[in-house]
Amino acid sequence: MLRLGFDIGGMSIRACLLDDQNMRIVAQKAEPFPIGQGEDALISQLKRMADDISLPLGLSPEMHRSVGVGIPGTVHRATGVLLSACNLHLNGMPIVQRMRKCFPNAHVAVANDADVAALAEYYAGAFRGYDSGLLITIGTGIGSGMIVNGRLFDGGKGLGSELGHITLQQDGPMCACGNQGCAEALCSATWLERQGRHCVLDYPMSRIATLAQGKPENVRAKDVVTAARDGDGVARQIFEEYVKNLSSLISTCCYMMSPRIIGLGGGVSNAGDFLIAPLTERVKRRARLYVPEKIVAASLGDAAGMIGAAMLPDMEQRENLQDRCG
Amino acid sequence: MLRLGFDIGGMSIRACLLDDQNMRIVAQKAEPFPIGQGEDALISQLKRMADDISLPLGLSPEMHRSVGVGIPGTVHRATGVLLSACNLHLNGMPIVQRMRKCFPNAHVAVANDADVAALAEYYAGAFRGYDSGLLITIGTGIGSGMIVNGRLFDGGKGLGSELGHITLQQDGPMCACGNQGCAEALCSATWLERQGRHCVLDYPMSRIATLAQGKPENVRAKDVVTAARDGDGVARQIFEEYVKNLSSLISTCCYMMSPRIIGLGGGVSNAGDFLIAPLTERVKRRARLYVPEKIVAASLGDAAGMIGAAMLPDMEQRENLQDRCG
Repeated sequence: MLRLGFDIGGMSIRACLLDDQNMRIVAQKAEPFPIGQGEDALISQLKRMADDISLPLGLSPEMHRSVGVGIPGTVHRATGVLLSACNLHLNGMPIVQRMRKCFPNAHVAVANDADVAALAEYYAGAFRGYDSGLLITIGTGIGSGMIVNGRLFDGGKGLGSELGHITLQQDGPMCACGNQGCAEALCSATWLERQGRHCVLDYPMSRIATLAQGKPENVRAKDVVTAARDGDGVARQIFEEYVKNLSSLISTCCYMMSPRIIGLGGGVSNAGDFLIAPLTERVKRRARLYVPEKIVAASLGDAAGMIGAAMLPDMEQRENLQDRCG
Repeated sequence: MLRLGFDIGGMSIRACLLDDQNMRIVAQKAEPFPIGQGEDALISQLKRMADDISLPLGLSPEMHRSVGVGIPGTVHRATGVLLSACNLHLNGMPIVQRMRKCFPNAHVAVANDADVAALAEYYAGAFRGYDSGLLITIGTGIGSGMIVNGRLFDGGKGLGSELGHITLQQDGPMCACGNQGCAEALCSATWLERQGRHCVLDYPMSRIATLAQGKPENVRAKDVVTAARDGDGVARQIFEEYVKNLSSLISTCCYMMSPRIIGLGGGVSNAGDFLIAPLTERVKRRARLYVPEKIVAASLGDAAGMIGAAMLPDMEQRENLQDRCG
């Protein structure tokens, strides 16, 4: 079946048609997100983008059977309501209900963007062959999606998990959310960047300063990683602290959820074994019996959101089947 | 049906027969745990205790249909193996397999002691009417059991959760496990006692010192709570820090699992509203959308272990039913 998937982000919207037999994308399109234009503009744009990739293949809106949406925010999946998506100014939007009007014959489903990315890894990426896996996406913030027993984990209230705001250091640095020592304040790419910027000011001869041409505002997370890999002392210290922070986050997840595999997504995961080897070592020491079999880089990159969104209705049908029997 | 339940602890073993129609205990017995005497002695004792409460009711071992065991350790529920129970010196014991020989016609099941206590609250206590709930038991250590969607949450690797060793303060006090800043090192009754003991030494005129008759070794967690309730300044400070620590633990659980209700067990929960009101306030501020509907004291006290153990086979039958359909 050809499944329609949307990956909505603060900067852009990506749409694809996915062939669920081989997990190949047969058509796709990306456009800027209609910032500040409200719900109606968003729905119109999604419908138009769907037509743009579907009509050339002979698929009219009525012919779609499966439409999935991933979106950066807190989603109540059972009711299809986007409870909160501050960056998109779309709080309380009944997104599934609105999309159903555009695709009257489709199973429409919506979930958090990191949740659908975890689904993509489960169906078509690094989690294949595992019945449980946790994806942690590391960027400006921290996102997460978890598969347990072959199902997307929604938690008790049906909101999924929000790893970014668990406490790792009670008296730690302020988080954008107003609390202290959240995972996001200690494990995001933003943390690496901030440390790198301090480094440019404090150590103008350091490798990070060279890479940033002496300008703090030029520093990116990857510069800190590159400098650490090059053997720069200050950069190594920052990177080691980052590994420690991230290992605390991962160990906490292991003690709570014990996923069999953990995938890291986002730019930081490009550091590969330079990050994953020392991280795995620390998690092994800390999480003991709860250690995952593997920590890996997520394998689907930017396409994960679209692919996972496209497969979301399939997951929901499997879940409903189980629930009806219970 | 009369269900047999065992609550195995480091000090004692409790056995009961539970009438699952009204959740009443119709017979019970407690004996000391056979410390250091090995698996065979334990199994013999469990069998004898079962006979002691069953035979007077005309129930021979072959007539039991449901036998459940709760035990303080890491249990792989699907295989019925006790992976690790350091305090009992029983690592790697195939406890379900051994119990089946004693009760050949019973569904035998084993789980962690806090998991079965959570089950008890779900079937017969504070969690009735909720499809998700997290029980946190606070004593020398921290235990936890979680119900999600009416099922006992086992996590990806099937080991349940181990909240005691999640990280709350990366650079915090040492935990008995060898790591720093674990929940157990910051939220256990032991933490309250330790602070209380320092207080006796540092402030010999404080209310805690009076309650402990000036001897640090006399301080119990409840003395700190009593002194704080009496308005003692130092005790209040300790208690407020405790509330902060516990609120970090609970908020982290909310962001990961979003239980609809949270129950606190163990002696500390006797503080009632004096603890639960400020705790709820802090959790509301920190966990936002993920806040539980209620934080309450667990309602079954010492009997929770036996009752939950007795109901464990019923839960497993419901779970198997769901899984077979999936």
